[in-house]
Amino acid sequence: MADNILAGPRPAKKVGVNPIIWKMAVLFIIPLMTFIIPAPEGLQELAWKLLGIYLAAIVGLVIKPYPEAVILLLAIAASAGVIGNIGIPGTKGGLKIDSVLSGYASGTTWLVFAAFTLSAAFVTTGLGKRIAYTLVGKIGKTTLRLGYVTALLDLLLSPATPSNTARAGGIVFPIFNSIAVALGSDPEKSPSKVGRYLMVNIYMVTKTTSYMFLTGFAGNALALSLMRDILHIKLSWGGWALAAVFPGLIMLAVIPYIAYKIAPPELKTIDNKAIAEKGLAELGSMSIKEKGLGVIFIFALLGWIFSGYIGMNEASVAVSVMSITLLCGVVSWDDILKNKGGWSTLIWYGGIIGLSSTLAKSGFFTWLADSLSHRFDFSGMGGAVVPILLLASILVRYLFASGGAYVAAMVPVFATLGLVSGTPPMVLALAILFSNSYGGCVTHYGGAAGPVVFAAGYNDIKSWWIIGLTVSLITYAVQLLIGIPWWEFLISHGWL
Amino acid sequence: MADNILAGPRPAKKVGVNPIIWKMAVLFIIPLMTFIIPAPEGLQELAWKLLGIYLAAIVGLVIKPYPEAVILLLAIAASAGVIGNIGIPGTKGGLKIDSVLSGYASGTTWLVFAAFTLSAAFVTTGLGKRIAYTLVGKIGKTTLRLGYVTALLDLLLSPATPSNTARAGGIVFPIFNSIAVALGSDPEKSPSKVGRYLMVNIYMVTKTTSYMFLTGFAGNALALSLMRDILHIKLSWGGWALAAVFPGLIMLAVIPYIAYKIAPPELKTIDNKAIAEKGLAELGSMSIKEKGLGVIFIFALLGWIFSGYIGMNEASVAVSVMSITLLCGVVSWDDILKNKGGWSTLIWYGGIIGLSSTLAKSGFFTWLADSLSHRFDFSGMGGAVVPILLLASILVRYLFASGGAYVAAMVPVFATLGLVSGTPPMVLALAILFSNSYGGCVTHYGGAAGPVVFAAGYNDIKSWWIIGLTVSLITYAVQLLIGIPWWEFLISHGWL
Repeated sequence: MADNILAGPRPAKKVGVNPIIWKMAVLFIIPLMTFIIPAPEGLQELAWKLLGIYLAAIVGLVIKPYPEAVILLLAIAASAGVIGNIGIPGTKGGLKIDSVLSGYASGTTWLVFAAFTLSAAFVTTGLGKRIAYTLVGKIGKTTLRLGYVTALLDLLLSPATPSNTARAGGIVFPIFNSIAVALGSDPEKSPSKVGRYLMVNIYMVTKTTSYMFLTGFAGNALALSLMRDILHIKLSWGGWALAAVFPGLIMLAVIPYIAYKIAPPELKTIDNKAIAEKGLAELGSMSIKEKGLGVIFIFALLGWIFSGYIGMNEASVAVSVMSITLLCGVVSWDDILKNKGGWSTLIWYGGIIGLSSTLAKSGFFTWLADSLSHRFDFSGMGGAVVPILLLASILVRYLFASGGAYVAAMVPVFATLGLVSGTPPMVLALAILFSNSYGGCVTHYGGAAGPVVFAAGYNDIKSWWIIGLTVSLITYAVQLLIGIPWWEFLISHGWL
Repeated sequence: MADNILAGPRPAKKVGVNPIIWKMAVLFIIPLMTFIIPAPEGLQELAWKLLGIYLAAIVGLVIKPYPEAVILLLAIAASAGVIGNIGIPGTKGGLKIDSVLSGYASGTTWLVFAAFTLSAAFVTTGLGKRIAYTLVGKIGKTTLRLGYVTALLDLLLSPATPSNTARAGGIVFPIFNSIAVALGSDPEKSPSKVGRYLMVNIYMVTKTTSYMFLTGFAGNALALSLMRDILHIKLSWGGWALAAVFPGLIMLAVIPYIAYKIAPPELKTIDNKAIAEKGLAELGSMSIKEKGLGVIFIFALLGWIFSGYIGMNEASVAVSVMSITLLCGVVSWDDILKNKGGWSTLIWYGGIIGLSSTLAKSGFFTWLADSLSHRFDFSGMGGAVVPILLLASILVRYLFASGGAYVAAMVPVFATLGLVSGTPPMVLALAILFSNSYGGCVTHYGGAAGPVVFAAGYNDIKSWWIIGLTVSLITYAVQLLIGIPWWEFLISHGWL
């Protein structure tokens, strides 16, 4: 059941062959086509063949015959073979095999990998739990207020937890799940007592905080890195937060209420003091590791906010912060070795970044933009381009079972389309970057935390999807009506 | 006890303060000096400060207050801070922070990481064991012949097992340890019956096969990469093997005999057929994974030998081979995630390669070579330079508890000294590259496999060190008298 949810749409089931073989056949046919069919006019042979591999990798991320990292290692090996092996006519030989590995030296990859350490540290030290129970005790005396506790808790953690699985799945979910159980809400018998509301709210909230900080979702840095090759924009950690804070806070204010109305909990008031006391008593007094993590977390935030002023970039700050947590013993090297999610992310992010930047260097995106601008006429559309792209970005999410896979597949396409239409690059970039997260609200498999929360069993697909679509569309409206004017204001004042 | 061996010399014990604090203090003082003392004449400020960090990292690798990967992450963070943060006068600003991360996109790092997968696969599939028992059954009817079985087994595995821990520690050692036990040799009561001989022989043999292939020891690719920045040489997988095969095979022929003479086993003949039958019966019939690994292993060898002809480099071959083992299910992605040694190596190798190449780009090694050539007069030394350097490289190994740490610390120094003396770069390179491995024979902590084998308890330090020094010095003589003429022959015929 849980596996089914994680895998998302499974066309293989219908065929009755070993699904892995079926899926791998699809992946092999895609690059094979680029060997059979000649390259379109104006596109270099190398770019064409790399495109085949890139597309196969993206399809692989979606249909998942193997874990993401394996798909990317296969794609790297294939690209290295194509670049080095086949004497492709017409290429200038400027690209080396090492180019495909370049993603592993990319600041983006390291920003995400290093910040995963902080994400994990909030779980392992218990600091995340402590903050949660403190908030429950202080402000959680009704079920609705518990919804706002979720929002506040997630918001507090999000600047340094790019792993949604660690934040929503590893900290927020276990606590609210145990609160639901303690309040007598059973997944089978009485889901609508409190559990259904609390669970769906966790997911919608984390999909909102995810776009509020560059480091709030692993896919953010990936998306920004993919866009940089196409739109040539610069966006700092602080600039990102500034652009997102306004629309983001509005949504955090309304989401718990929307969920409350659509999936109303039967229980209205709760004994929050008792729950908090019990939870905090189990944690005991605050450990030195928790205190250390608290201090390091604040330094990380200051580092990211002021990175421009201290001559460092976001990745250097993240690596420094990771080193300091190791130096102080807040996490051990063995903790990091055991954090399998971090390593898998390192391999597949580094891989996709290396592949896409090699594809960019081969001239593919320039060619794509060029041929799109010849084929389509955006002249009469004016301001309608961003609304259409964003709506498409939400609707297409029904097909994607992973936020990262969506980013790798669609961000380059939407960025190129927007660029061709003549939309100002920064507005376009922000619109796409933020929709990466809230677009995932529409299903219970739209992001890594979804299946974890859904598997608790409190939710039915129908109410989840209704709430998800409502949240997505309201966010969409807020982004268009408040976000865009806000970003234009920031741009015109030189703050972005 | 085992921990003591692994850590090597422990000066901290004498002081009576928390050893980690004591060690960290040393590491902080080194870069601090470069901030207090101005840079020597002709050396740029940036190079001087990076040197402080590089030296601290190397001392850190030797005294190990933290695992290697943590030391390197700290050094990367510090370098990023130095490069980006302090407005160092006189630098041209050509170096970016990303430069320190460049080691993670280096083919060297990936060659080692990917080949670790194969190393682990020989252990997990049981193919290593099967080859071992087959050889024991066919040719191991005396204890001396068991010594040669060890040599042949290690030689067969070495081209694709850069992890000495996996090869000698994970495959060869457990089998010969159980053979020693089965033959009634007890570590406490009767070590000299067979155990003492078999154990010390494993280590000496693996330190020999380690220099026979680029992929026979993780430090080889690291050393070659560090040298490339200084000596500007090109050496292929095939070229390496060709240069090493002749002196290497001579040593494999004499080592089991030397060990047999110095640590003679009391038992002379054994019932090898019974041991082999029992071992093979336990393994059962050959699994499909073993067969797959066997085929992939042969492809890997062919790939490395002919990499130049198929337009790939060694790293592309290694990544392709890794991908194929994953694709065929010979290893799973989870197996790789669990292979902690692989991840630690990825992080620390990538780190040291990035640091040293940044140091090279900052002009340090050019300055060092320049100032050494002004201070020292090598003109009268002629052919004596290589013999002196090699002897120094062996003697200095008594101080190093890790082959990798030795490579990072000493290879750049010996390469620079040799270059300044006017020795032909390729001869110099091969001499240093090979001594990285056999130099480690002199102690029981000279390489990762040493402590594993020594911890079995069969060996006394005295006989181990006598055998080690004997093997090192005979290898030294073979390298000088047979190796150098052989390499000069290969160079003059254009084969290197």
